[in-house]
Amino acid sequence: MRGGRVVGRGAHTAYGGPHAEVVAIHDAGPAAAGATAYVSLEPCTTHGKTPPCATALADAGVVRVVYAATDPNPVHHGRARAALRARGVAVRGPVEVEGARTVLAPFRRALRARRPWVLLKWASSLDGRVSPARGRGGVISGAASMRFLHELRAHVDAIAVGAGTVAVDDPRLTSRLPEGLPAGRRQPDAVLVDSALRVPERARVLRTPGRRVFVLTARPPAAKARRLAAVEGVEVVVVPGRDGRVDLARGLAVLRDRGVRRLLVEGGPRVAASLLAAGLVDQVAVVLAPLLLGGGDAPTALAGAPFTDLATAPRLRSPRTRRLGEDTVVEGYLAPARPRRVSARSGGRS
Amino acid sequence: MRGGRVVGRGAHTAYGGPHAEVVAIHDAGPAAAGATAYVSLEPCTTHGKTPPCATALADAGVVRVVYAATDPNPVHHGRARAALRARGVAVRGPVEVEGARTVLAPFRRALRARRPWVLLKWASSLDGRVSPARGRGGVISGAASMRFLHELRAHVDAIAVGAGTVAVDDPRLTSRLPEGLPAGRRQPDAVLVDSALRVPERARVLRTPGRRVFVLTARPPAAKARRLAAVEGVEVVVVPGRDGRVDLARGLAVLRDRGVRRLLVEGGPRVAASLLAAGLVDQVAVVLAPLLLGGGDAPTALAGAPFTDLATAPRLRSPRTRRLGEDTVVEGYLAPARPRRVSARSGGRS
Repeated sequence: MRGGRVVGRGAHTAYGGPHAEVVAIHDAGPAAAGATAYVSLEPCTTHGKTPPCATALADAGVVRVVYAATDPNPVHHGRARAALRARGVAVRGPVEVEGARTVLAPFRRALRARRPWVLLKWASSLDGRVSPARGRGGVISGAASMRFLHELRAHVDAIAVGAGTVAVDDPRLTSRLPEGLPAGRRQPDAVLVDSALRVPERARVLRTPGRRVFVLTARPPAAKARRLAAVEGVEVVVVPGRDGRVDLARGLAVLRDRGVRRLLVEGGPRVAASLLAAGLVDQVAVVLAPLLLGGGDAPTALAGAPFTDLATAPRLRSPRTRRLGEDTVVEGYLAPARPRRVSARSGGRS
Repeated sequence: MRGGRVVGRGAHTAYGGPHAEVVAIHDAGPAAAGATAYVSLEPCTTHGKTPPCATALADAGVVRVVYAATDPNPVHHGRARAALRARGVAVRGPVEVEGARTVLAPFRRALRARRPWVLLKWASSLDGRVSPARGRGGVISGAASMRFLHELRAHVDAIAVGAGTVAVDDPRLTSRLPEGLPAGRRQPDAVLVDSALRVPERARVLRTPGRRVFVLTARPPAAKARRLAAVEGVEVVVVPGRDGRVDLARGLAVLRDRGVRRLLVEGGPRVAASLLAAGLVDQVAVVLAPLLLGGGDAPTALAGAPFTDLATAPRLRSPRTRRLGEDTVVEGYLAPARPRRVSARSGGRS
């Protein structure tokens, strides 16, 4: 704001992408000089994936910063005030209001949790099929959505899939953008959720150099576990749960210990449903192609672990909808479900 | 357009709702006087669900009308020119361009076909479930989407559902808007697709007075058929197909003969899939609630009759995406699928 007028806006739209402050400064251009910056979160003061925002604001000539909430990240906590004042910028905050609390709640939660931020993403037909029942496979979503996927991949620390997905699709789980990876980014690590260690040893995901592969398993045959662990970059992580399958919460904790802060989960349906059922998903992004596939046998995004009560099923908080080419993307953070009025005995039609 | 400036815009967004011309005139207000109207379709000249647009344009003081395409409806065909000129309005058209041809193609097709215009509509969770697997039912979509449904119902001639939907939900299939039905509209007729005539005789849909109920069936037990046919307003239509189920094409032809020009199909999954497989759907509207339900057993919108090839599966042409409260709506016309490049052997991930 300068002279009562908004001169620039910005939002942090992708992990690892520029922070909101940098986007707003760029949006404002020369008008940033002499302006007041209103931000939800205390500007950062460290070089992470992006330059520190406190420096960027001072460099742009911003004379005053008002922030709603203190950064819950211990690395940043409360440092902005000193850094900005040292540069002659007036600081007011935290002026926390309910709005900021709501916006920032998921980030606070994630930083407190000993696990990565988990973004669950899939693409489906309008009727919810992630691939056709039988017959020819192929890419369901359009070119713009594929670009979105590869941008997401470029901005996370690791990508997780289930063993079934590896068996069927043999994915590389790399970010492949025409212009290459963004500056400072490397290929994300790969995570396989593979209770019985069924992953083929020739799987492409195991043979992509330059990144780590974490194989989360519960009941690994000893010989195969040894052979896999001998592959360059591969770590076999044995985290058995009580049900004989991978204990996902423990697996995520190990990933966090290995430095994975942002995890993109691309499926399959059982891994996705298990993570949701365990309350381990922070954010969901669904790409819907304008296509109808049908078929009782065609796979959907979430298998097993159904939520049978509409009142308590996972629900996106403040969902956003946008178009990517002819596809529709719905994104949002997962909130703990709140009870709501549900008619006792009637279906969707009445 | 007046003086090189757009003074009003309009689109025909709901069957039976005001035509685009009327909306644009309203949008322009007094600025319509002296303006030129550019329309895709030759303005109508008859009182149908709405007053004739040619009259409305002349009344508003429009001095010139340019239209892209002649109305394929024989009732209107070519009459606008004479009607407008009689009122002193200059007319230019048809100036058909490719764009108009594309926009109007589905209407032309429908008018040529001996069946109603078929709009398939459902609401689901983001993962494609139309109701939870087990446990409590309830309304998946939000209040704004429910209003959209009841507006749709108010603007169609009939609503069709399958026997399973009646058995599970016992719907009334009426339009229930707080302000009541729009002027000139009555409750839509009901259509049940019920091959074996399983509909309970106490079903609410059979007991809603003031509208007709068509029960399309293939193998009706004679006694039950007689009892149903004796109910006020109910007609049992026997249209057996070769597979022992309802011949949907023949059923739709009968409905058209009974005056049903616009049919809203609300499911269930088997009826919807069968109509799609038979190429009998013109338009699709999907409401996606920001909710995740999961569960291998939870019903999806399209059961049976899967499309196994991405290249030939039904695809929405020029799909539109909009928000209704927190829900997302994707709508579009169905185009005959065109072959497109599909990678021979790879899934959605790679």
